[in-house]
Amino acid sequence: MLNHAEAMDRVTTMQAQLQAKGVDGALFIFPIDVFYFSGTRQNSTLWIPATGEPVLMVRKSLSRARAESVLSDIRPFPSSKEFPALFDEQVQKIGFTFDVAPVQQLNYYTKLLPGREFVDISSVNREVRSIKSDYELEQLRHSGASLCSVFKQVPQFLKAGMRELDLAAEFEHRLRVAGNEGYVRMRAFNQELFMGLAVSADAASYGFFDGAVTGRGLSNASPHGASTHVIGCDTPVFLDYTGVFNGYITDMTRIFVVGMLDPQLQEAFDLSLEIQAHLQNSLKPGAICEELFQQAVEIAEKGGLGAYFMGMPGEQARFVGHGVGLELDEFPVLAQGFKVPLQAGQTIAIEPKFVFPDKGVIGIENTFAVTSNGGEKITDIDDQIVFI
Amino acid sequence: MLNHAEAMDRVTTMQAQLQAKGVDGALFIFPIDVFYFSGTRQNSTLWIPATGEPVLMVRKSLSRARAESVLSDIRPFPSSKEFPALFDEQVQKIGFTFDVAPVQQLNYYTKLLPGREFVDISSVNREVRSIKSDYELEQLRHSGASLCSVFKQVPQFLKAGMRELDLAAEFEHRLRVAGNEGYVRMRAFNQELFMGLAVSADAASYGFFDGAVTGRGLSNASPHGASTHVIGCDTPVFLDYTGVFNGYITDMTRIFVVGMLDPQLQEAFDLSLEIQAHLQNSLKPGAICEELFQQAVEIAEKGGLGAYFMGMPGEQARFVGHGVGLELDEFPVLAQGFKVPLQAGQTIAIEPKFVFPDKGVIGIENTFAVTSNGGEKITDIDDQIVFI
Repeated sequence: MLNHAEAMDRVTTMQAQLQAKGVDGALFIFPIDVFYFSGTRQNSTLWIPATGEPVLMVRKSLSRARAESVLSDIRPFPSSKEFPALFDEQVQKIGFTFDVAPVQQLNYYTKLLPGREFVDISSVNREVRSIKSDYELEQLRHSGASLCSVFKQVPQFLKAGMRELDLAAEFEHRLRVAGNEGYVRMRAFNQELFMGLAVSADAASYGFFDGAVTGRGLSNASPHGASTHVIGCDTPVFLDYTGVFNGYITDMTRIFVVGMLDPQLQEAFDLSLEIQAHLQNSLKPGAICEELFQQAVEIAEKGGLGAYFMGMPGEQARFVGHGVGLELDEFPVLAQGFKVPLQAGQTIAIEPKFVFPDKGVIGIENTFAVTSNGGEKITDIDDQIVFI
Repeated sequence: MLNHAEAMDRVTTMQAQLQAKGVDGALFIFPIDVFYFSGTRQNSTLWIPATGEPVLMVRKSLSRARAESVLSDIRPFPSSKEFPALFDEQVQKIGFTFDVAPVQQLNYYTKLLPGREFVDISSVNREVRSIKSDYELEQLRHSGASLCSVFKQVPQFLKAGMRELDLAAEFEHRLRVAGNEGYVRMRAFNQELFMGLAVSADAASYGFFDGAVTGRGLSNASPHGASTHVIGCDTPVFLDYTGVFNGYITDMTRIFVVGMLDPQLQEAFDLSLEIQAHLQNSLKPGAICEELFQQAVEIAEKGGLGAYFMGMPGEQARFVGHGVGLELDEFPVLAQGFKVPLQAGQTIAIEPKFVFPDKGVIGIENTFAVTSNGGEKITDIDDQIVFI
């Protein structure tokens, strides 16, 4: 559980950012943002003034928010008459997360606080959260170890002739028994993920999902992940799953094959390990995100497989790694356009993958922490293809 | 799969609403809204003009959107230069779903289309979707039957001494094998649900979740649903789960007891059946939503259990039923303030429940369709408590 000192550290870090931007305070309404600063995701609004004590205003459940949160000022959500009294005259510029807050919510708070200017603090919020504390790194290590414990069990139940869906169901069952919380939080608008992907052979990799691999899914309403396709021999079975423990998400992929593997796919897999090794070495403070992506593309191209890197032709994902933490799509992103340097304590899922339209999807993914010695592998089991 | 005639029916219904409100067209960006009108949930924006052909603009995946959608005008998402050319001069007032669209999205489209007025069509959108076609009712019946098939299996695996989490994992495994898509779409800001709730005894019913029962959950980050609490004898085991098949969600609750049940809880259960029977009879076109809620409260009070109805003291949920369909929280809601009449083809989860702080949670839930003969039970298995 989040302790008081750490909660106040997080608040103070945010306050320094608000002050630097000339913002007088921020209203957080998105559940996981509220959780990050307060330790509770009860239905609440969190006011963090640029200086002074944060105030947690709870709609439901007040008693549970009080039991869960370490903040000192926790109160029922004020009436619309009382609400403005919380904000003194000097508070003019109010930060708000425009990336996730629906328009109706902005309109609601604008009406409660007339005359104030609301400004977007989405990026600052994501930047603050990208750097994990020791406590958070511990949570992520626990999440990674729990997720790995399930990956290790796959040879016990993967068989040719089962449907992707049966494999998914079995994997997910064991994840839940291991304590996985299930719900995978994503910040990006339009993204949805149910636990992970269990796909085989040339599983349709076209799709809305922002990743190299999509999977056929079960219907047009759920067009990604496992399908009812039957898993065959001599083809890669691609398991890309998340661990969600105490809110902290890790992300990894392993390949399993019943039988033998096409030499071109083995070659692509070996190349994905080479890319991963290069990136792991480079995961040090100061490395520039987009340069790491470019280097990954170069290795893929030098290996003669650039056309298959990170997705179907014409729909290749333009990244090779993404931050993970309380959300699956945190900062930083190893992608074109991210010119920012890595910082110690960031945690990143690195996922070099190759998609061959008629043969299958293959690659590796692990969650790493950025350290001065390069990436610390948080999903720490063997990377090699498991032949069954 | 959605056919062309039905897609055009839905579009025409929406167009009539837009015309009635003097809106020149609507931009839909929320995945399930796009899916409803087009048959695909690929990453796209759907323009429905008040008159004329809808245009689906696809970011990812265009090829898959073309394979999935029955609309005739499907094109790549235009550049910001090309985008305005799609909208003629007469288009001044543009509908947008302010309930779910993030502020950044509104700002983005406002910038693409300067000088136009964006107006909130959230309610109209939900009202249109609340009335299900014959095709949708078929989907919901299939969803309900599949969900029921898993509820029937519970006596095979529920045992005293297992953790709530193990029960949940086993139930969820069977749901997935039955074809459940897993991800439960909710529209309300701040709500999250992972498949359902498996809770026992006096499982903490305080919580953010908008329902009578919350459950302890696994951590403060996931403070609802199953916990690691061990299920005992002589206490109600409360299983409230969703079926998600081809996008269509049904919702039901059954009670299981290993051993005997406290007479007060049996009495409360019988009262929940009485409330359900009254509401099922009343689920006819023209019945007023809030009156049905009030009648449910009256029956609970007449039975002497008003204080325990729909939640913990002080945090009682102020509803007794909610629309279901492509989202778990559709219109209509049987709640205070909903003065609207029911319409044929609406589908509603009715869930009279009682919470006894030191004894447990108990009640019933089924999904019904509104018909001129009263509610058609879509989750059609026996309601009685299953003693094991």
